[in-house]
Amino acid sequence: MADSDLVVPAGWEPGKGSSATISKQFTFDRYGITREFLDRVAELSEEDGYHPNISFGTTYVNITIDARDGDQIGEADQRFAQAVDRLASETTG
Amino acid sequence: MADSDLVVPAGWEPGKGSSATISKQFTFDRYGITREFLDRVAELSEEDGYHPNISFGTTYVNITIDARDGDQIGEADQRFAQAVDRLASETTG
Repeated sequence: MADSDLVVPAGWEPGKGSSATISKQFTFDRYGITREFLDRVAELSEEDGYHPNISFGTTYVNITIDARDGDQIGEADQRFAQAVDRLASETTG
Repeated sequence: MADSDLVVPAGWEPGKGSSATISKQFTFDRYGITREFLDRVAELSEEDGYHPNISFGTTYVNITIDARDGDQIGEADQRFAQAVDRLASETTG
């Protein structure tokens, strides 16, 4: 599969004027759930050796993934995004 | 002490055109230290019942404190900022 065929995972937005980042906001009902999600993302990051940029408050988390090759979001970045999505659905579920 | 006498703690920057927020960036040598600092700030937040807005990456943490009264940074906000500063110095030290 060529890089140009790569699809941004659902709900993730590409950076403005750049294909080198994707971002997504997750919202939660209360801080305890937000915190659990953050802890799970931290575990994922340590397993994967990749640390996204994260902004959060009481009930939201914004995650920005930068292309590991510095140029364009690739398969490893997409897999990370999909893993984050799974953690979010498990945490809220 | 009148509110107008309150001093923004060293290194904290007031929000643009507003006295309702203060922000500060902390940088660390590696992710493990960043993570320890984040965990300590989370503990402080739970003790204090106040959750700032936090942005972080591998080696940096930006913390924004919103005025609890919604209008102007007050003593409780300043105490929180100073407690964060202490955590940062303990974590890096």
